[in-house]
Amino acid sequence: MRLQELGEWELLQRLSTFAPAGQWDDDAALLTEQSGRTLVVNTDVLVEGVHFSDTTLCPQDLGWRAAAANLSDLAAMGSTSVVGLTVGLVAPGETSWSWVEGVYQGLSEALGHFGGCLLGGDCSSGAQRLLAITALGHVGDGPIRRGDGRPGDWLVCTGPHGLSRLGLALLQGELDPQQREPLPAELQAEAVRAHQRPRPRLDVVQQLSALRPAPCPWRVAGTDSSDGLQLAAANIARASGCRVELERQALPMAPQFNRLASAEHWCLSGGEDFELILALEPSWGEALCAAMPGCTRIGCLLEGEAGKVSWAGSDQMLEASGAGYCHFQ
Amino acid sequence: MRLQELGEWELLQRLSTFAPAGQWDDDAALLTEQSGRTLVVNTDVLVEGVHFSDTTLCPQDLGWRAAAANLSDLAAMGSTSVVGLTVGLVAPGETSWSWVEGVYQGLSEALGHFGGCLLGGDCSSGAQRLLAITALGHVGDGPIRRGDGRPGDWLVCTGPHGLSRLGLALLQGELDPQQREPLPAELQAEAVRAHQRPRPRLDVVQQLSALRPAPCPWRVAGTDSSDGLQLAAANIARASGCRVELERQALPMAPQFNRLASAEHWCLSGGEDFELILALEPSWGEALCAAMPGCTRIGCLLEGEAGKVSWAGSDQMLEASGAGYCHFQ
Repeated sequence: MRLQELGEWELLQRLSTFAPAGQWDDDAALLTEQSGRTLVVNTDVLVEGVHFSDTTLCPQDLGWRAAAANLSDLAAMGSTSVVGLTVGLVAPGETSWSWVEGVYQGLSEALGHFGGCLLGGDCSSGAQRLLAITALGHVGDGPIRRGDGRPGDWLVCTGPHGLSRLGLALLQGELDPQQREPLPAELQAEAVRAHQRPRPRLDVVQQLSALRPAPCPWRVAGTDSSDGLQLAAANIARASGCRVELERQALPMAPQFNRLASAEHWCLSGGEDFELILALEPSWGEALCAAMPGCTRIGCLLEGEAGKVSWAGSDQMLEASGAGYCHFQ
Repeated sequence: MRLQELGEWELLQRLSTFAPAGQWDDDAALLTEQSGRTLVVNTDVLVEGVHFSDTTLCPQDLGWRAAAANLSDLAAMGSTSVVGLTVGLVAPGETSWSWVEGVYQGLSEALGHFGGCLLGGDCSSGAQRLLAITALGHVGDGPIRRGDGRPGDWLVCTGPHGLSRLGLALLQGELDPQQREPLPAELQAEAVRAHQRPRPRLDVVQQLSALRPAPCPWRVAGTDSSDGLQLAAANIARASGCRVELERQALPMAPQFNRLASAEHWCLSGGEDFELILALEPSWGEALCAAMPGCTRIGCLLEGEAGKVSWAGSDQMLEASGAGYCHFQ
């Protein structure tokens, strides 16, 4: 059996048998320190031609984006502070130093912004440029796990979706003039920014405690939307043993985004928006949406078939968005 | 300026400007936890064709070796216990699942032996098979840093050197029958084992505290010999502001190893033996050599030109062994 026949979902399932409590079941691994604090550890690999290209990202953007993607996984586990990250860099010998320097500048810039420092790493020659990043952070008042949702929870999303996919399309010249024309210049610029300079939502996690209504114990389910909003919702629902209903009228889109023919599809499955999708008590969700601009209720968890995603008011399942990006096909 | 023109040493120097306190200046990065314990973090990248090949390592051996190499860096920083490791795996889509499974079995086997667990990771398709591993461990009674040596320290080595290089030569068919003939079968088997199943010397670090003479405060300099014995000695000396003298008659070789024409060269610069080279108070060094089989005094640190390596009783510098493996040429 080859990896490309196996598919990424099945591969992750098989790998997780080697690490029952590890990162494969969630966004990152949690480790309890002697002091009681919880360390979050996350490793991501970014391969040229699969995850990035010179067409869409300059070296500084690549460094920023690589750091942001990792920090987003920390945030998705409830991390409020970043310790730092290590970098495994592989590149052919003919790669210029200025490319490497740019990547490290971008990494440093992101860490300067979101906290933490560069802890070191390794470098080697190889056929293809790639970055393997491991990020470390600390959980704040409590962890956020995919499986901690309950029927009745609000599903809250921390920002608009589909922008990163639109940014990629603009950078790759995917849209013809007719498709681009109705999109305000501001939206286009925002989309490119969302693709090149995503922002991990550590700020939302930092606010969660302060916004918790007194009677609620700490219980927040969640994941980041790096593989798309719909898949994030499905993953929370599956791990929590619930089904999820999404409000079609409440899909989180930037203003004018719906002028795109593919607006709904990209909002649901564009991926790489690096927002958080959280499931929590309605009163807590309400407080979050009232306090944090961009946070909105997009649906709720309900008793039913685990992992099923449907529109509110309809029993029809949404067409599967796939298991996110399948990197082996 | 291209990476291949820069060379690995210069590249690491440049990268270390982005992480002044990080792994690039030593074997791994040290992080102080709230409880006062010190966490060690190390990232290593192993690329097919650069660091491994199917000719010399089956998937299980590759997994074991990858884990062992990382744990050796933890030991070299004073780690006595392993928390675990994350794995970034890249492979072409046509790679068989059985190869991946074998690698993970080898990783798990090594962790079962030396402690810690698989914490998760990431996987992606790519042109070339590679593993990016990040290992986490805890420092025992004190850290081991390259720069903590003082003039007068014994230089102690924890085992024979050159075996892994001999193992590689045997596996690659580098030696003609005339060169192989004088080597006992047992030595050949030991060399292949040293190459395929290296053992990180966490056991030595675990014994260091118990063997410390009462008047000595904790002060141990050291590094592992993954890039060769001579370079390890030079790195300790350079970081400690000392010169080092090696005892030519005391080079740590396995029995009969000196029947090889390249015995001394491989002992000094073969690399990947994953033993520790330590600089410490003579009384402590003596206690270590008396208690731990395989530990021997191979020289000492002296006042003089930082990083200079010469034979005891001679003022002549050893020919530079290079900056270890230069992976960009």
